[in-house]
Amino acid sequence: MPVSEFRLRRRVQFYEVDFAGIVHFSWFFRYMEEAEHGLWREAGLSIAAHDAGLAFPRVAASFEYRRPLRFEEEFDVSIRIAAIGEKTIRYACEVTRGDTRIATGAMTIACVSHRPGEPMKAVAIPASFASRFQVATE
Amino acid sequence: MPVSEFRLRRRVQFYEVDFAGIVHFSWFFRYMEEAEHGLWREAGLSIAAHDAGLAFPRVAASFEYRRPLRFEEEFDVSIRIAAIGEKTIRYACEVTRGDTRIATGAMTIACVSHRPGEPMKAVAIPASFASRFQVATE
Amino acid sequence: MPVSEFRLRRRVQFYEVDFAGIVHFSWFFRYMEEAEHGLWREAGLSIAAHDAGLAFPRVAASFEYRRPLRFEEEFDVSIRIAAIGEKTIRYACEVTRGDTRIATGAMTIACVSHRPGEPMKAVAIPASFASRFQVATE
Amino acid sequence: MPVSEFRLRRRVQFYEVDFAGIVHFSWFFRYMEEAEHGLWREAGLSIAAHDAGLAFPRVAASFEYRRPLRFEEEFDVSIRIAAIGEKTIRYACEVTRGDTRIATGAMTIACVSHRPGEPMKAVAIPASFASRFQVATE
Repeated sequence: MPVSEFRLRRRVQFYEVDFAGIVHFSWFFRYMEEAEHGLWREAGLSIAAHDAGLAFPRVAASFEYRRPLRFEEEFDVSIRIAAIGEKTIRYACEVTRGDTRIATGAMTIACVSHRPGEPMKAVAIPASFASRFQVATE
Repeated sequence: MPVSEFRLRRRVQFYEVDFAGIVHFSWFFRYMEEAEHGLWREAGLSIAAHDAGLAFPRVAASFEYRRPLRFEEEFDVSIRIAAIGEKTIRYACEVTRGDTRIATGAMTIACVSHRPGEPMKAVAIPASFASRFQVATE
Repeated sequence: MPVSEFRLRRRVQFYEVDFAGIVHFSWFFRYMEEAEHGLWREAGLSIAAHDAGLAFPRVAASFEYRRPLRFEEEFDVSIRIAAIGEKTIRYACEVTRGDTRIATGAMTIACVSHRPGEPMKAVAIPASFASRFQVATE
Repeated sequence: MPVSEFRLRRRVQFYEVDFAGIVHFSWFFRYMEEAEHGLWREAGLSIAAHDAGLAFPRVAASFEYRRPLRFEEEFDVSIRIAAIGEKTIRYACEVTRGDTRIATGAMTIACVSHRPGEPMKAVAIPASFASRFQVATE
């Protein structure tokens, strides 16, 4: 069964909180990535597809922040597949604490060939990967 | 003299590089913030305006990635003020290595009142801050 | 019932792994701190004791590394209280993956008064905190 | 000329500062590593010696913290070679802000063979590396 979405429960760690007492904005990109890798594991895959000579660098990433997250709060990171192209996958992401919407993100990754000493080059996502995913129905 | 832009020279550190041998995408948001704080210092200000009871959380941040950055490479982070609103400032950012464009970012911050035990609330940027900045001419 | 030890289960995240494919050594200090805060929550406490005008900065921290941890591996972080002084607490920590010992750490924290605009100053750990902890029996 | 020590000037970044307004203790290990890599560049070397099939993982690291570092403060990180063994190098490190001693650290690294799909194994430091370094005279 191809997968479309994944939800991660997480607690805010001390080293993620800044001087103002809220999660530093850069951490949301790591939260989104954590959820992405959970989605991949759910699909039976690892994003570190070294054996296949592939890597999946990010080509775009964004977040809009609505409310702060504070130390030790529990929250959810929901990611879903918004689009699958020949060489790219686009995700949409929501961070929530209970019923409160904290932040909304998006991220696009590309499939590239990745061999030591060679430059990365965009390639088609192999069917063995693409067949495990499908676009989420809104 | 109000300031509009700032350029930071930086070297890629080992702990910024991921498994694929390139700077992890989350680091670009920290690079952009480093340049922002350099811009504020150039304006004679600190973003940590605790005495004034203010904080400047991010309300949106994004990056588009064109080329990878690798360990020990030197690069530049250029930030400029794209817009100044009553309560917000919007920045545009470019990361380059020599003549190579690496990534393009944007970030919007809001001015909020920040006192212990009270929720953050958007407020007008004080004139003593706003007067130090002006929108960059393209 | 005072608490003496805490065990945390954790998975290696992508952003924790370095160029060599192993968890960057600086992350073990964050793992140890995560386990410490779990221990404090187990004791009904938060390390962010702002209301009490206290903070608990680290005065010493160390790790010895035996084996590498790799991306997506699951591991355990066990922390126990090795000593309680008037103003300090000392922890011992072990990171294991199944039966494999990965790393051994230690950390000493101090109790300091922490009020805006005043320098931190070591003070006695209040009884309301100290009574929740006890030294672990080896 | 073999090198023995290196000094790095650095400014505290916002994302390095924690809730208590001071640099998070885990960052000192990254500062020490930054200085180490500066030392290696001074010696004409890169710690990322992939071509040589080598890596230099840390086998021990420690810090003692005397004074806090705060946002935007400038400080120095001085690293020197304390010992060179057949397979290991030991460093001593001092973090200072002007005349104020902030923290004292130590770190031992090992030379290991590092080839895809093979476990890391301690090996002798090649003469082409070892000859570039010498133990610092106190």
